Amino acid sequence: MEISIIGLGLMGGSLGLGLKKSSTPYKISGYDLNSEHSIMAMQLGLVDEIVSLTDALTKEVVILATPVDICIKILSEFAPVSASQTVIDLGSTKEKISNAVKSEIRESFVAAHPMTGTEYSGPTAAKEELYKNSTVVLCDLEKSGKRQADIAKKIFTDLGMKIIEMDSATHDLHAAYISHLPHIISYSLAATVLSKENPQDILSMAAGGFRDMSRLAKSRPDLWTQIFRQNKQNLLESVKLFEKNLSELRSCIENEEWESLEEKLEKAKELHLIFK
Amino acid sequence: MEISIIGLGLMGGSLGLGLKKSSTPYKISGYDLNSEHSIMAMQLGLVDEIVSLTDALTKEVVILATPVDICIKILSEFAPVSASQTVIDLGSTKEKISNAVKSEIRESFVAAHPMTGTEYSGPTAAKEELYKNSTVVLCDLEKSGKRQADIAKKIFTDLGMKIIEMDSATHDLHAAYISHLPHIISYSLAATVLSKENPQDILSMAAGGFRDMSRLAKSRPDLWTQIFRQNKQNLLESVKLFEKNLSELRSCIENEEWESLEEKLEKAKELHLIFK
Repeated sequence: MEISIIGLGLMGGSLGLGLKKSSTPYKISGYDLNSEHSIMAMQLGLVDEIVSLTDALTKEVVILATPVDICIKILSEFAPVSASQTVIDLGSTKEKISNAVKSEIRESFVAAHPMTGTEYSGPTAAKEELYKNSTVVLCDLEKSGKRQADIAKKIFTDLGMKIIEMDSATHDLHAAYISHLPHIISYSLAATVLSKENPQDILSMAAGGFRDMSRLAKSRPDLWTQIFRQNKQNLLESVKLFEKNLSELRSCIENEEWESLEEKLEKAKELHLIFK
Repeated sequence: MEISIIGLGLMGGSLGLGLKKSSTPYKISGYDLNSEHSIMAMQLGLVDEIVSLTDALTKEVVILATPVDICIKILSEFAPVSASQTVIDLGSTKEKISNAVKSEIRESFVAAHPMTGTEYSGPTAAKEELYKNSTVVLCDLEKSGKRQADIAKKIFTDLGMKIIEMDSATHDLHAAYISHLPHIISYSLAATVLSKENPQDILSMAAGGFRDMSRLAKSRPDLWTQIFRQNKQNLLESVKLFEKNLSELRSCIENEEWESLEEKLEKAKELHLIFK
């Protein structure tokens, strides 16, 4: 199967590596707007060849692993060349991307969100097993052609992923709570420590807890601004609900309602009864 | 050297395991209020013997690895029996504990906070290398006897730790930002997802980012309520500063000030230039 990957960073590069290790013979072309990334992608063996964007868009399967605004730009401007093609995007938001596809090529398109990643970016961040054992969400599949949906499922299965399906609006709501809100919180925590007079002294005491909680703040601000913009309403809802929960805990502390605080912490901890 | 460990959970149990592996010959006695924990600690080889609380308090070195309120209770009620003894506490707060020690035995006492741990608790959570390569903060050392300070330093060095010193007030301020605030945030995030109608559906999409951000909410609410109470003022200051930083990001999103948002995220990300 001939696949092109547009965007050879963490997500696209890891996809190339992962597919090259699968038992299905894939021929993988790549394109990146940044020519240095294209050179690195070849040097790192992420793809078999580098092609032009025009050529990339003619392949049997086209995978968009670009920032989410670029997904929309490509899907609304550069139409696939044939009805037999399959175009899959990997963006962290789904509703605006899914709706941006022109109706005449909608069957060629599959909206996917692999729930994996790291805080790093670029071709050097690519990891062969990034996708393995993770979950991919396929959205609005009833709008995709049967053939295209099957091809997407085969590719993600070859990567060792678990597939779940939902509509893109539900995806974006859930993604706000599970991913976009945690990113905003992590950036806010990092900003909080940095706003103190002596962050270096404070950080000298930091251990695993703070490391985990501040890790997401390493993520690329340009990519995440696009994601936050595309998922604005859901994100705001989640931030406000978080602020409400935090202010309830803060009030308990201010008012020295220790029993009530402990009860609220016990209740919050119950998340881990259903999240293994 | 004869050491007793009072409290045989994650911190005390790991300390026993770690010291038994060091090249210094330690004889390690243990006591836990919970007799089942005492039995488990022996079965798991965390200590060499189980003794009564009274006996534990007569050893050459006494290590308090109990909840922080119990540290204060022991230090203010059960005085060490001899001036040659060394009593070290491992609590997550330091000022109230350091000040709770009676002046006549103050030289026998060393206030320590090992910046390590996991979200798990009890003897089964103990890990031989929990302390290794971590940092321990020794507080108000000028109030400890020279002999006692040296013994504490030897023990933590034998565990493979890096030692830093500061006054207990500064420790508590830093600990609020680096540890106590992250815990409150993690509990609030868990509570936020749980307060939705369908947390299980949301969690089906959760990956590493959410896992890291919600991990601290597995911690024991009773222990953390005590820590939050003992460090109330610093914690409230840190929570309010965090709320301010989060509300600034939220405002950017509400007002669609995307350039300003991206700048704020870039600034927050700079934390990782000084936090390796």
